[in-house]
Amino acid sequence: MHFDGLPKNAVIREVCPRDGFQGICDFIPTEKKVEFIGQMLSTGIKEMEITSFVSPKAIPQLSDAAQVLPAVKKEYPDVEFTALVPNVKGAENALAAGADVVNVVFSVSESHNMANIRRTVEQSLSGMDDIIALVRGKAKICVSMATSFMCPFEGRIDPRRVAELIGKVRAKGVDCITLAETIGTCTPKDFTETLQVVKPALEGIPTYLHIHNTYGFADMNVKCALDEGFNRFDSAVGGLGGCPFAPGAAGNAATEDLVYLMQSMGVDTGLDPLRVVTVARALKAYGLRTMGSLCASSFGKPKPEMPVQNQ
Amino acid sequence: MHFDGLPKNAVIREVCPRDGFQGICDFIPTEKKVEFIGQMLSTGIKEMEITSFVSPKAIPQLSDAAQVLPAVKKEYPDVEFTALVPNVKGAENALAAGADVVNVVFSVSESHNMANIRRTVEQSLSGMDDIIALVRGKAKICVSMATSFMCPFEGRIDPRRVAELIGKVRAKGVDCITLAETIGTCTPKDFTETLQVVKPALEGIPTYLHIHNTYGFADMNVKCALDEGFNRFDSAVGGLGGCPFAPGAAGNAATEDLVYLMQSMGVDTGLDPLRVVTVARALKAYGLRTMGSLCASSFGKPKPEMPVQNQ
Repeated sequence: MHFDGLPKNAVIREVCPRDGFQGICDFIPTEKKVEFIGQMLSTGIKEMEITSFVSPKAIPQLSDAAQVLPAVKKEYPDVEFTALVPNVKGAENALAAGADVVNVVFSVSESHNMANIRRTVEQSLSGMDDIIALVRGKAKICVSMATSFMCPFEGRIDPRRVAELIGKVRAKGVDCITLAETIGTCTPKDFTETLQVVKPALEGIPTYLHIHNTYGFADMNVKCALDEGFNRFDSAVGGLGGCPFAPGAAGNAATEDLVYLMQSMGVDTGLDPLRVVTVARALKAYGLRTMGSLCASSFGKPKPEMPVQNQ
Repeated sequence: MHFDGLPKNAVIREVCPRDGFQGICDFIPTEKKVEFIGQMLSTGIKEMEITSFVSPKAIPQLSDAAQVLPAVKKEYPDVEFTALVPNVKGAENALAAGADVVNVVFSVSESHNMANIRRTVEQSLSGMDDIIALVRGKAKICVSMATSFMCPFEGRIDPRRVAELIGKVRAKGVDCITLAETIGTCTPKDFTETLQVVKPALEGIPTYLHIHNTYGFADMNVKCALDEGFNRFDSAVGGLGGCPFAPGAAGNAATEDLVYLMQSMGVDTGLDPLRVVTVARALKAYGLRTMGSLCASSFGKPKPEMPVQNQ
């Protein structure tokens, strides 16, 4: 393995308060949530996906979004806060609460998009226009493309389809794009192949990679991404997270692991892994129960059925 | 990341019955143990470290070594069974039980060797001679060099010291060598560097890599090893394991992960990852409690203090 020619710096966008906390059984009281987020930010994190402005029925864990974001923003005015929104109403609420970035999500996979947000991909793309019109000039607009690598229902996603959809999203005039490995089962070889195919379509736009760790490939896929010149990553302190609508998906890439890995390869994230570990321990000590397979597991990593197309 | 030029085949030596079961709180009854081992072997595994012939006071979990090995060997005569031994008495018992390979362990790190087996490295090396004399002609002799990469007390181990000790071990006329990343904290860059330095000293002798996964680098370190031409790996079904004398160390590289990863890169292990996952699930369903940090963890991977020398 080669360690030369990697990007000198990388950006970590901490997603634990959104993707991590939504994967926890218990509602964390708002005050405690704000305290945990403050601990995360004290590590030096400069970008954070802090919450979702979604129906409290869908994700009750984040029903205090309108309280959490302003409370934290007041203390950390220099941090760029991203809020995930599913629709115009969510975007209005996110802007009212002071979001710096509004993140709109759809899935590249038709069947996952339908399971997750009950729309076809075409409906998601056109539904995005009203959100973008509302947000433009008030906050940055980011579009997250879930299942850009693997789908729990369809298996491997054709990278040419991902590239095509990147083009359609960019035509709307967005500020950044996230490619999500939502399921955490993509092998490094497939991950690399997708990045190589879509790279030309991403020329000139800040691109984040959002990687889950179901099969333990998260760190290696980060290395693959660095090899291809990508240097913006979503990750969650303690490796928390997991999409409730992605059967078998495990936690996000752990921020402490990514920071430590990148530090070891000379890629500066501006973060100290030991400080991140301290925050992960505080979360752990709080006794949170995750909804993913990890809470049901007495040892080891969760092992969902491996995808059929890889046999 | 490149995926060309990798070895076409790799050998998995399954170590769950030794390194996995010794890391479990509960004594697994002999009959159940033999059943689990049979399930592991039904996946097609051809090499297995099946037990340790050590004091039942030190590792009560493996106190039925003399019963387990013959019971399994009768059913699987074509599998090569390795038994770990700490001394001449252990080697006698291992031979009597029908071990095909006798595995002698010492630690490259003086302080870990003292903590683990209460000897200096020099004492371990000379103590090995009587074992080797006894075993020669009756079984293969393998020497495992623990802490070949990182030590929980001393941090990073100088690869030149590893190469020097490989020379001393080879001078005794052994059949194979194992380099162990006992602690599971070695970064891929350091791992690669050690392999590159020691490779000339290992020319012509079958060499196994025994990798733990404390910081989640196991899969990536396997890829690093393949890149350097190594293709023999220890791993444990379900990622079980962990040295009770290595503070903070987590489980072994999981056999199912390694098999799946290698399959995805065109490296044939002769094993079907789905069958290995089935065995991992059976173990999990049995409700074993591990002694390592995983049993104390409500989510995520264990995060022992990261080594000071890497700050």
